Formats: sequence, structure tokens, C-alpha cells
Amino acid sequence: MKVIIACKLIDEITPEDCDYIGVDKGALFLARQGIHMVCAIGDFDSVEQEDLKLIHQFSREVVCLNPIKDDTDAQAAIEKADSLGYQQMEILGATGGRIDHELINLRLTMQYPGRVILKDDRNLIMAYPAGTHHVKAGDYPYFSFFTQSEDVLTLHGFAYPLERRRITCYDLYTVSNQLIGETGTFINEKNPVLLIRSRDEKKDS
Amino acid sequence: MKVIIACKLIDEITPEDCDYIGVDKGALFLARQGIHMVCAIGDFDSVEQEDLKLIHQFSREVVCLNPIKDDTDAQAAIEKADSLGYQQMEILGATGGRIDHELINLRLTMQYPGRVILKDDRNLIMAYPAGTHHVKAGDYPYFSFFTQSEDVLTLHGFAYPLERRRITCYDLYTVSNQLIGETGTFINEKNPVLLIRSRDEKKDS
Repeated sequence: MKVIIACKLIDEITPEDCDYIGVDKGALFLARQGIHMVCAIGDFDSVEQEDLKLIHQFSREVVCLNPIKDDTDAQAAIEKADSLGYQQMEILGATGGRIDHELINLRLTMQYPGRVILKDDRNLIMAYPAGTHHVKAGDYPYFSFFTQSEDVLTLHGFAYPLERRRITCYDLYTVSNQLIGETGTFINEKNPVLLIRSRDEKKDS
Repeated sequence: MKVIIACKLIDEITPEDCDYIGVDKGALFLARQGIHMVCAIGDFDSVEQEDLKLIHQFSREVVCLNPIKDDTDAQAAIEKADSLGYQQMEILGATGGRIDHELINLRLTMQYPGRVILKDDRNLIMAYPAGTHHVKAGDYPYFSFFTQSEDVLTLHGFAYPLERRRITCYDLYTVSNQLIGETGTFINEKNPVLLIRSRDEKKDS
């Protein structure tokens, strides 16, 4: 079962048939859209009392975190979703603001390979456990691979193929690859790899 | 001598008494502001012919890169600035879009400790070589420390002090620290550490 976790920076949403968790201002955003949540979580220190009432109306459970360490909101939400048994977590509104928070969210994504997706207008991000993975072309045409630890990466069906290439967290070249055809395969041999699929801004923006 | 490197995503600038390098659309932005460049660099594949003429008028030198690998624009600009002898490089307009590009720019920053600053409305980012560093309070109140390799970090004068704590690229807790007073000290013993200073969005935005 999939849950959408709406974080502070969310500014639009297309409702889906799945469950929702709202994080801080993200919970207020969902409530204002009339979307019911299984849980609202956050320190809510930037939310007015009246808005908090609205959040309570739309949420089965409200978890108030200690405001001293507000940067762990997304982490708390992911752990909550995990404890509730959700296998897939799609996180919206967690990118594009403070880069320190963004990096922490990327590290969190690495801790839940195959389960957490970070998504915004330009980026679709997921970690893959060590293994062989097949990917398809889609709305986000650029493929960029990032590792935390050293790894060995193979890419087939890409414009810039690799054959058992050692990659580290210092490399600059595993970025902006594209599929040649409709599908491609990558093999990461040792550890989870972060795949960032991205697209350029639209011509009219 | 300091150079400001204006990248694609730049949308405003306060002219300073220093040199400028324009990267791709960033060069067009500078030219339109009437700012002269020591160099314009990029593949310029998203720039009209007429705009390219304008860039030539405002730039001492124009370097056209192969459009096949456009993601290395910032890297090429930093290497160019380095070869021209600039000790300080302030990079604007290189954050907030595609996260793959952003991560590469952070890795580049790590390769030039003490010399490259990545800056936007919310973030001020620099790598510090191993050693003892003193920092002052300022416009970006939150301090977050990130390492690529394992390191040993000490923080004095911070709300959350550390004493010779081992940190790795997996940690989630070295984020959103703040100074207690006007100054603080940090010691990273082994390798460069990335310091992201950040601030929350303004109340009116």
C-alpha cells in the first residue's frame, strides 16, 4: 500500500487513490484541499491555532514533535509511515528549499531502497538496493547515479554505457545519462545507489 | 581576486566590484544587465543567435563547449576561473533546479575547499579543509555539516556542541545547528567538510 507524504514545500497536488500523511505545513495544505490523512506530523510552530483545528478535522491522528529539532520532520514522517506498514512512500514538497534539508532527505531515501520516492516538478528520486534493475523511458529523461560508498556500476541501453566501472562519492561523470531506446538496465553490485531521474524546465517557464 | 560565476538559474544580481564569468544562460543574463565578463562559457544550445551576439559584446572571451555533455558547464567554468588565477569563486544560479546538477555542484565545491562558494537566497555553501575554523553569526543562521568520507568533528559555541564525534556520510544529525553567541569554532580533523549555512524562507514569501 502506498502513502503520499506531503511536506512543507508542497504547492500543488493531484489527488490519488492512496493514503496520505501531512508534515507540518504540508498537513495544512492537504486539509485545505479537503484531503483526509492517516496522520499529521510536525512541530506545527509555524501553523496558526485555527489552522491546527482544521488539520485535526482532516487527520485520524496528529503527532506533535518537539520544535527544537524541526529538521527531522520528514524523518519522523517516514518512520511513522514505516511503522504503519506502508511499503511505498512518495514524498512531495521536500525539495527545492534549504539544501541541508534536501541532503538529509536524500540520505533518508538511501536508507529505504525501493520504498521511498522523492518527487517534484524536475526530479524523481529513488534508491535501488544492490542488484540488477530495469528502467523504462518516461517523463524524466535524464538518469544520474550517485553512491555514498564505493560501488561497481554497469549501464546497458544508455547513451553513455558503463561496464563494471568503479564509482565513488567523488565522481562527477555519472550524471545526465539517457536511454537509447525504451528500456535500459543497470547493475549496482555492492550497495544501494541513488537514481535521480530529472528533466529540464519547460520551455514556457 | 574574486570572480562571480553566474549560472543558468540566476534571476537577480547586485553588481559588485569584482570580475564575472557567465555560464550559458547566465552569460546572457549578465550581458542583459550590462555587466562585462572576463569569459562566457557554455554550450549555448538554448540561446538564440542574436543573444549570442550580445554575449560576445559583453565578454572578453567566449568558450563554446560540446553540447553533448552540458551538465559540466559549471565544472568547466570553475576550471576556467582556476586557470585564470582567481582564488575566490562565488557561484550564483547553480542551485534549485535539477538535483543531479545540484549534487555535482556540491561535489565540485568539495574539490575546492575554501575557494568556491555556492550561494542563493536560502543557502550559503562552502567546503573547509581539515583544520580549526572560526565562524560568525550572519544572515544564514543555520549551520549544517556534511562529509563525504568519515571524519571527526568538534563544534564549540553551537547550540548542539560536539566533542570529537565521528561522522559519516550516513548521519542525519549534523544539521540545523545554530551559534549560541556571535562566534563559534569547528574542527574537522581529516578531510574537507561541507558547511551549508541556510535560512528559512521569509515570512512574506
